[in-house]
Amino acid sequence: MNGAECLMKALVDAGVTLCLTNPGTTEIHLVAALAKEPCIRSVLGLFEGVCSGAADGFARMTGRPAATLLHLGPGLANAVANLHNARRARSPVVNLVGDHAQYHRANDPPLASDILTLAKYVSGWVREASSAAGLAADGIAAVQAALGPPGQVATLIIPADHAWGPAQATTTALAQPHPAAVSDQTVDAAAEMLRSGLPTVLLLGGSALLSPGLQAAARIAQKSGAVVMSHTFDARMARGAGLPEFKRLPYFPERAQKRLSGYAQIILVGTHPPAAFFAYPERSVQMAPDDCRSAVLAGPHEDSVGALQALAGALEAGEDIGTVKEQRPELPTGALSAHTVGAALGALLPENAIISDESGTSGEYAYRLTAAAPPHDWLCLTGGAIGQGVPVGTGVALACPDRKVICLQGDGGAMYTLQALWTQAREQLDVTTLIFSNRKYQILQVELARLGFTDPAATLLNMMDLGRPDLDWVQLARGMGVEAARAESTAAFNTLLARAMAEPGPHVIEILL
Amino acid sequence: MNGAECLMKALVDAGVTLCLTNPGTTEIHLVAALAKEPCIRSVLGLFEGVCSGAADGFARMTGRPAATLLHLGPGLANAVANLHNARRARSPVVNLVGDHAQYHRANDPPLASDILTLAKYVSGWVREASSAAGLAADGIAAVQAALGPPGQVATLIIPADHAWGPAQATTTALAQPHPAAVSDQTVDAAAEMLRSGLPTVLLLGGSALLSPGLQAAARIAQKSGAVVMSHTFDARMARGAGLPEFKRLPYFPERAQKRLSGYAQIILVGTHPPAAFFAYPERSVQMAPDDCRSAVLAGPHEDSVGALQALAGALEAGEDIGTVKEQRPELPTGALSAHTVGAALGALLPENAIISDESGTSGEYAYRLTAAAPPHDWLCLTGGAIGQGVPVGTGVALACPDRKVICLQGDGGAMYTLQALWTQAREQLDVTTLIFSNRKYQILQVELARLGFTDPAATLLNMMDLGRPDLDWVQLARGMGVEAARAESTAAFNTLLARAMAEPGPHVIEILL
Repeated sequence: MNGAECLMKALVDAGVTLCLTNPGTTEIHLVAALAKEPCIRSVLGLFEGVCSGAADGFARMTGRPAATLLHLGPGLANAVANLHNARRARSPVVNLVGDHAQYHRANDPPLASDILTLAKYVSGWVREASSAAGLAADGIAAVQAALGPPGQVATLIIPADHAWGPAQATTTALAQPHPAAVSDQTVDAAAEMLRSGLPTVLLLGGSALLSPGLQAAARIAQKSGAVVMSHTFDARMARGAGLPEFKRLPYFPERAQKRLSGYAQIILVGTHPPAAFFAYPERSVQMAPDDCRSAVLAGPHEDSVGALQALAGALEAGEDIGTVKEQRPELPTGALSAHTVGAALGALLPENAIISDESGTSGEYAYRLTAAAPPHDWLCLTGGAIGQGVPVGTGVALACPDRKVICLQGDGGAMYTLQALWTQAREQLDVTTLIFSNRKYQILQVELARLGFTDPAATLLNMMDLGRPDLDWVQLARGMGVEAARAESTAAFNTLLARAMAEPGPHVIEILL
Repeated sequence: MNGAECLMKALVDAGVTLCLTNPGTTEIHLVAALAKEPCIRSVLGLFEGVCSGAADGFARMTGRPAATLLHLGPGLANAVANLHNARRARSPVVNLVGDHAQYHRANDPPLASDILTLAKYVSGWVREASSAAGLAADGIAAVQAALGPPGQVATLIIPADHAWGPAQATTTALAQPHPAAVSDQTVDAAAEMLRSGLPTVLLLGGSALLSPGLQAAARIAQKSGAVVMSHTFDARMARGAGLPEFKRLPYFPERAQKRLSGYAQIILVGTHPPAAFFAYPERSVQMAPDDCRSAVLAGPHEDSVGALQALAGALEAGEDIGTVKEQRPELPTGALSAHTVGAALGALLPENAIISDESGTSGEYAYRLTAAAPPHDWLCLTGGAIGQGVPVGTGVALACPDRKVICLQGDGGAMYTLQALWTQAREQLDVTTLIFSNRKYQILQVELARLGFTDPAATLLNMMDLGRPDLDWVQLARGMGVEAARAESTAAFNTLLARAMAEPGPHVIEILL
């Protein structure tokens, strides 16, 4: 056996079942070893940002890392933007990055670069393999590091001579990751805050936003009067009928400040304190009132759900909680708009669907109008690096072949990683991508106005405008083998969405706004 | 005025005339300042790799840096692969990267990251602006650093509060960059080597591969019997009728070793010693014979052309040199192949054309069969990071609107940065992109065989195969507003190429191989 083969065996032992690849010459032995492992599904992406985004999506749904296989520094660089999003999502991801044979680096060949520095930029764990014999242990260590808790990006750099060098298979057991339990004192302190009767926000993130965490939070809220909230953009939120309701902080800081005004206490559960997405001249970046007290019930590395359940117990909260009653909007009529798209989605969303949301300015209605749809998962753009939505949807579909996946995607972000559509076609993934085609970076035009640039010059607007020429998403999608259609009316959109929900396989619907 | 406005004025003073942009909220004041500067053309790219590749192409033709305007760390990350190629091309490029307001970083908002580390990975010069008042001087320093010599990637990180903060315009003069002159001793030592009569290679790179350098090298060769060569992939080479001929080292190491066998001396002029692109088990990465002596006439930071001229003088070389006589191949017939495409290009290449070559395995015939076409420039994939060809062609067309630009592009690399076609359509650039559609990463399948993986499994080939589904480049190009057609026969290709050469504006021809 060679190092590459031992590494792949170790990854199988560690529970890796998916590898998103875009290899080159330095990774050929790794690809060959991968091709021999029936337990790992290899999926090709035609750009590395597809691979990293899909690995993120897979991790959000399974809690397990997918591997990526990337070609030296530039291959890793192309994956970085979506690794940034994965980092913010606390998704476990294992990058396998091929490098030149060690003895060749002194020659500084064209593809050589300082991969270690690049890897450190975006990874919580980085190792450069130092021998073929050690590659199996390196692989286990990478998976272990990726799992955390909390999950993180782990990058293993593999010089080609270690991949092809001789090695013997070894078995190293993976230690099952366990989030640390929160202490009784911390739970008691939170209970004390809640018993004070002061207006309190329970701000949840991470795994606390899935059903058990939400249920426990709802019990606490019902007993104490606290309000349950999440950040604007979380990795994964369970919502819809049968689940407790919670509020999402608005994106724009002045609205978030208004939402949080009057609250005296914030209890953080598996997440960070609220702060503005961006700073603006002469406005505060703090979202909570100045005199608001903040406390941490559970950090991202801790057992948020256990802590919430313990807190509910400490408060002697009841089991009966209010949950959302299913109530779908009517199928909409009237002119096509972000509102009618949201209503159609609310009317037609299949039970147990998964939404990958990078809709930018266009998706707020969809979020609101699906609030009482059958239960579903909602995945957000966690790190603000656009081009996440379709790749994450691709990885989600690889993780959950029995669930319907819907990408809500702004056209600007869609262009960043449109290559993901080809992978959906090749793997025949059940993903429907709704492209909000407003033909501009609308958020920037909104921000321009907010920053006081009224009546901006045409040259300025040009740099925020996707028109001239208009993108034709039907041709772009078909060019990659995905069935696509354009909706220019609400009636047409209703029909196209209903058809996509009924037929398996990838679909693109361009929504002309 | 604010810092952003002062910066843009300084860039105008420093001779910057083009900015490739993909801005976000943290760059709005920079975009607004840019929009006020009529001396800087702003061009939008729908992915940052388009911006950095276009800046590289612009620099290769003008010797001046274009600026890029990028959105925080992820925006820079998306630009990195083509910045890697620009670094290898020694192209001057100035990146302007917006960052969060300094006071907001402590809140670690979603888009925050360690931009400085990322910038260092790919830049020869990095600075983080420390005040609004200093931004103008920072901009001048960035241009100065980018110009070198040799040219390099310079990255200026601009916290948003410095962009919007108050500042006063200042004028700082740019020092004109001058490559260091090579000493008489160095020239004499090279002359001595050549007078020895030993078989000698003059290996040229950088500016030595333009007409004056080639002429001087040809005089030296004629006098001394030395042979003039270049590396396989250089930033820019002048070639064709009326220019001296020179050989390019083959890509595969065993062929390069064969080409260099028997030579006792290599004189390096503005470039690095020959070495393999990749290492292979049990094969040498050294291309020159073991006993071959190597000497540097001029380093990349030095005046290569002056050194060659001085050397020709020291050798008392004559002025009469052999040059290539124009001889075009006949318009080809027969089945469509990389060979007939090359012949058609040789038959139809307009005088003074510029070729951006990322043709991978398909372009060798095109290179050979244009050797005696009218004079033209040939630009290669310098750093091996695929996705360079079409963006570089885009920047070349922005730099040289009066010259015909042709991109020779493999389909695998084309998918990486296909968004460049939209910029070509928006700016109505005169670029014809020939996509060699062999529907595989053919170089990898070749390498697989070379590495001894004969009869590879289907799962292995799958990861190097762009089929299932086939990409349709006609639809992809039209989806971005570029006129496109598919050639399935040599006759059809001849007609399409002739039409594209006659009509200005962007064209895509998919060549079905």
